[in-house]
Amino acid sequence: MTEQHQLSFTTRGRGSAEITDEIAALVRHSALKAGIAHVFVRHTSCGLAITENADPTVRRDLETLLQRWAPDGDPAYHHKLEGDDDMAAHARSLLTGTSLSVPFADGRLLLGTWQGIYLFEHRTQGQRREIVVTLLG
Amino acid sequence: MTEQHQLSFTTRGRGSAEITDEIAALVRHSALKAGIAHVFVRHTSCGLAITENADPTVRRDLETLLQRWAPDGDPAYHHKLEGDDDMAAHARSLLTGTSLSVPFADGRLLLGTWQGIYLFEHRTQGQRREIVVTLLG
Amino acid sequence: MTEQHQLSFTTRGRGSAEITDEIAALVRHSALKAGIAHVFVRHTSCGLAITENADPTVRRDLETLLQRWAPDGDPAYHHKLEGDDDMAAHARSLLTGTSLSVPFADGRLLLGTWQGIYLFEHRTQGQRREIVVTLLG
Repeated sequence: MTEQHQLSFTTRGRGSAEITDEIAALVRHSALKAGIAHVFVRHTSCGLAITENADPTVRRDLETLLQRWAPDGDPAYHHKLEGDDDMAAHARSLLTGTSLSVPFADGRLLLGTWQGIYLFEHRTQGQRREIVVTLLG
Repeated sequence: MTEQHQLSFTTRGRGSAEITDEIAALVRHSALKAGIAHVFVRHTSCGLAITENADPTVRRDLETLLQRWAPDGDPAYHHKLEGDDDMAAHARSLLTGTSLSVPFADGRLLLGTWQGIYLFEHRTQGQRREIVVTLLG
Repeated sequence: MTEQHQLSFTTRGRGSAEITDEIAALVRHSALKAGIAHVFVRHTSCGLAITENADPTVRRDLETLLQRWAPDGDPAYHHKLEGDDDMAAHARSLLTGTSLSVPFADGRLLLGTWQGIYLFEHRTQGQRREIVVTLLG
């Protein structure tokens, strides 16, 4: 069986925001006993990742590494129509991925204690981001 | 319910080719109302990624970055039996991943406007690549 | 239909260990005819990846690249409570991912000949790691 939901988030520009509670609420109200929650962003310049939810410097350091891996305004880029962060955002999206999935059972996501689900905005400006959540069980 | 299909593609060597239409056709003919389309490559030297479908320089720039992240013939590599691109291809495969999944409903993939599904060939020579598509709903 | 299992592994510190047999055994004993096996680690400092199962120098070279991409004790890190490998482990986890999924049919994983499923320990010390395997079909 399948349940499908659409969520929207307005980001504040580059950085990550926790969306665990929003996904957990859909699972809590689901009629499915067990399965996986599949989360998908409908964009190529943002991403999703599970990382530590305790110390926010983890995500600050991930941001430093993403900037190192895919620098803004790199002279090698040909795609730069929308500015220095344009191609960097697509490259960051390749590394973070556009979907993730988490098992659930009895109304609860089976995340570990220190795991949170984060929406990573890779553009420097805030954007409206659409997410499709599919519960399969 | 589950539907499963095997697809084959012959790549032209390193680079990416769009396979959105092939996946969309399987979804269009499916008896499932809603779910996810799971796409899996049965190889360790190619990958799958969703990225921008409008400006081809995005994928040219991703290629530049993949070469920077996992250079061909890096002197640090021990695995080089099949040439300079051998280990680089396995490392690129770790970064792009060997599977992806996209939600669908009513016979259509729920991709965003600018999202395309791409098969990334990481070897320099063209290869025959087998893909398993599983529709779950 | 869904079947869900919990597995535990004690790692020996940084490096990768094959867990294909453990996942294959769950699929072999499943009542499901076809679907996907979804494997999820409940931690933010280890990861899962599919890579070559023939020549172990592939994984030795991946280790070299992971150390290059996310160096231990990088002076840029702010998160270093648990030592030089702490933030590096979270960054490696972003790159390898915390879940993977493999199609199966008739009791067998549809892996390619050279594909193995590996648990990557990103901390330098061995850890107890919990994995949730969800079979969907």
